[in-house]
Formats: sequence, C-alpha cells, structure tokens
Amino acid sequence: MKLFYSAASPFARKVWAQALENGLGDRLTVVPAAVSPVSRDKSIVDVNPSGKIPTLVTEEGEAVYDSRVICEYLDSIASGAKMFPAGRGRWKALVLQSLADEALDAALLARYETVLRPEHLRWPEWRAGQMDKITSSFDTLEQNWTGYLAGHVDIGVIAAGCLCGYLDFRFPDYDWRKDHPKVAAWYESFSTRPSMVATAPK
Amino acid sequence: MKLFYSAASPFARKVWAQALENGLGDRLTVVPAAVSPVSRDKSIVDVNPSGKIPTLVTEEGEAVYDSRVICEYLDSIASGAKMFPAGRGRWKALVLQSLADEALDAALLARYETVLRPEHLRWPEWRAGQMDKITSSFDTLEQNWTGYLAGHVDIGVIAAGCLCGYLDFRFPDYDWRKDHPKVAAWYESFSTRPSMVATAPK
Repeated sequence: MKLFYSAASPFARKVWAQALENGLGDRLTVVPAAVSPVSRDKSIVDVNPSGKIPTLVTEEGEAVYDSRVICEYLDSIASGAKMFPAGRGRWKALVLQSLADEALDAALLARYETVLRPEHLRWPEWRAGQMDKITSSFDTLEQNWTGYLAGHVDIGVIAAGCLCGYLDFRFPDYDWRKDHPKVAAWYESFSTRPSMVATAPK
Repeated sequence: MKLFYSAASPFARKVWAQALENGLGDRLTVVPAAVSPVSRDKSIVDVNPSGKIPTLVTEEGEAVYDSRVICEYLDSIASGAKMFPAGRGRWKALVLQSLADEALDAALLARYETVLRPEHLRWPEWRAGQMDKITSSFDTLEQNWTGYLAGHVDIGVIAAGCLCGYLDFRFPDYDWRKDHPKVAAWYESFSTRPSMVATAPK
C-alpha cells in the first residue's frame, strides 16, 4: 500500500503509529509529501480531491482517506493488535479520537494563521479562538479521560498522544503540562512506546 | 437524546437527515445553538471541548461527537434502515463521506474568511485554496461517483447531498452544476427525499 505522508503532519503520524501498533509497518510504502491549504500537490489531488495527507492507496488501487478512514481500514486488515474496540467500547475510543482530532485541527489553523498567512492579515481573535479549543480539550482530557488513557491503547489514545506530540513540536511555548499534570504524566510514559518513538516529528 | 443543532450547519444537517433515514427522528430533542470559531457556547464546550455542533448527549448521558461518530452511533441503535454498509462496501461509503466532509470544511473556512474575518484581514489566496478543494471534489464526484450516488442511500451519499445543499445555501454564486451535470442530475432527484426536504436550510 502507498501512503502519502509527512512526518510533520499529526494526522499522518496517527496513521503510521497505528500501522506500527497493528504490525502493518512493512506493508506501507511511504510517499513523502509537503502540502498546505494554499500549495496543493496534484499527485495527491488526483486520488484525494482535498489534496490532504495522509492519503492511502490500497493494494487494489483504491484511494482511502481521511486519516480516520485509513486507520479503521488498516485495523480491519491487520492480523495483529486491534485499535478499534468492538461493542460499546467503540464509542469511547471514537469520541476520544474526535476530541484529539478537533484539537489538532484547531492547532493547524492556529499555525497557518501565524506561519502561512502574511503578517499584516492575521486576526488575533481567530488564533485565540483556536487556542481556546485546545485548552478546553486538555481540560476535558485532564478531568474525564486520564483513567481511560492509562488503561488502553486504541485509536483514541494514539490520537491523544499525537496531539501532545504535535503541541510539543510546533507550539513549544504553549505549556499544556502546567495545568494538566495527569495528562502530562500519562504522556511521559506513552511517548516512549516504540510506535510513538518511531514516528516522533523532528 | 439531546442534539445540539443548527439548521445552518451542514454537519448538523447530515446527522439529522441520517436520523430521519434511520427512523430515529422522534428520539432526538433538538437544542438550538449558534456558534462560530470566535464565539463559543459554554453549554456545548462543557460536553464537547471543541464547542462545535453537532454534539449529541445519549440517553445514558454520554457525550458523542463529532458528526461522523454521532452518525455511526445513531446507525448502531437504529432498528430501521442502516446507513453504514457492512463488509467491503463500508470503505466506499466512508471515503465518500470524507470527500464531502472535507469539501464542507473547505466551504466553512472560505465562508469564515468572508463573513467572520474583518475585511482588511482577508487573504484571497486562502479563500482560493479552499474553493479549489471544493471544485476538485466536484470533479471527482462527477468522474468517479455518479454511478454510486445513483444506486445507494448511505452516509456517504447523505454527506454528498448536504455538500450540494450547503453550496446552494451559502454560495449561491458558485455554480457547481455547470461543469458537473451528472452530479446535478442526481442531486435534483436526491434533494426531494423527505429527509433532505425536512432538513433543508432556509
């Protein structure tokens, strides 16, 4: 399978980390890509009209996107550990993934505002609204999810790990650990998993 | 169940339309909400830290989000028609949903750029990049998906209908029909389904 990928994309990282947890790393061929909302890559647009990474092309030549669909597809063909729980546990894992993905979307929009958009066109309220979503997400993780995080490895937990890692990578001045010590303690351990070490952005 | 909802949100419409297809309309209590990325609603943030709609609270009091997770959760408890295919058909439906959702995300970002952001801070290249994603998405629908659209009603097809409806609602000057006659012909029929008529934004 072919995976359009960038090590700097937290959603691509989520896919790759899950593939490693699934034992599927050997079956993925990575195609490096660097895209942004104002600089699209035709080779990706040809298979995924949003032009976003990650995008997967299966062994049968079918395009699969976005990251959530890729993750679930990979999980369905994996013979190793499964990251999408069955039964009622499924909703917890999917909601946690959504929480982390939404915070990551906010982080990407906040970043585009400061590194992509020309300086004289930036709107501080927009960035503040996005950063506020991230803080609310960490508040919710700290209050409601640390027991879950400590007891599971699933797609939601991987997504939460990619969220923490992305903030450390791109927002080093945003100290999410200060008011969220239980999440910080969990991540200190989780970030040492081989799947997280192998996919850490540099 | 309680659904934080706005008739103007295409993702909330997707959930409501699917609930009607599932025969679950009577079990949802709608809580009207009006939110934007710079104007958040604490009553929603308390259950979903992104503050976005749609957000569902189940009969057991559990928060479920985002729209994709809500749709699949509703489908799982429905005794009526199912909108998430089983087996290999699942991936086609989920990829189509993702295609439509990504185009809708682009449409929302393009709209925020022109109706929310102060005029002197707007960046034409940003909006053009988002509109280009929408056009690519319609090109892909026209080339690859019209046979599928005509033969199925599932979550992907509902999402595609919500995409067309949202563009008609918020981007009346963007003539997606001109270069996509097969999608236009499908939508002319699909938009008359009771679930689409009942949820049409005004």
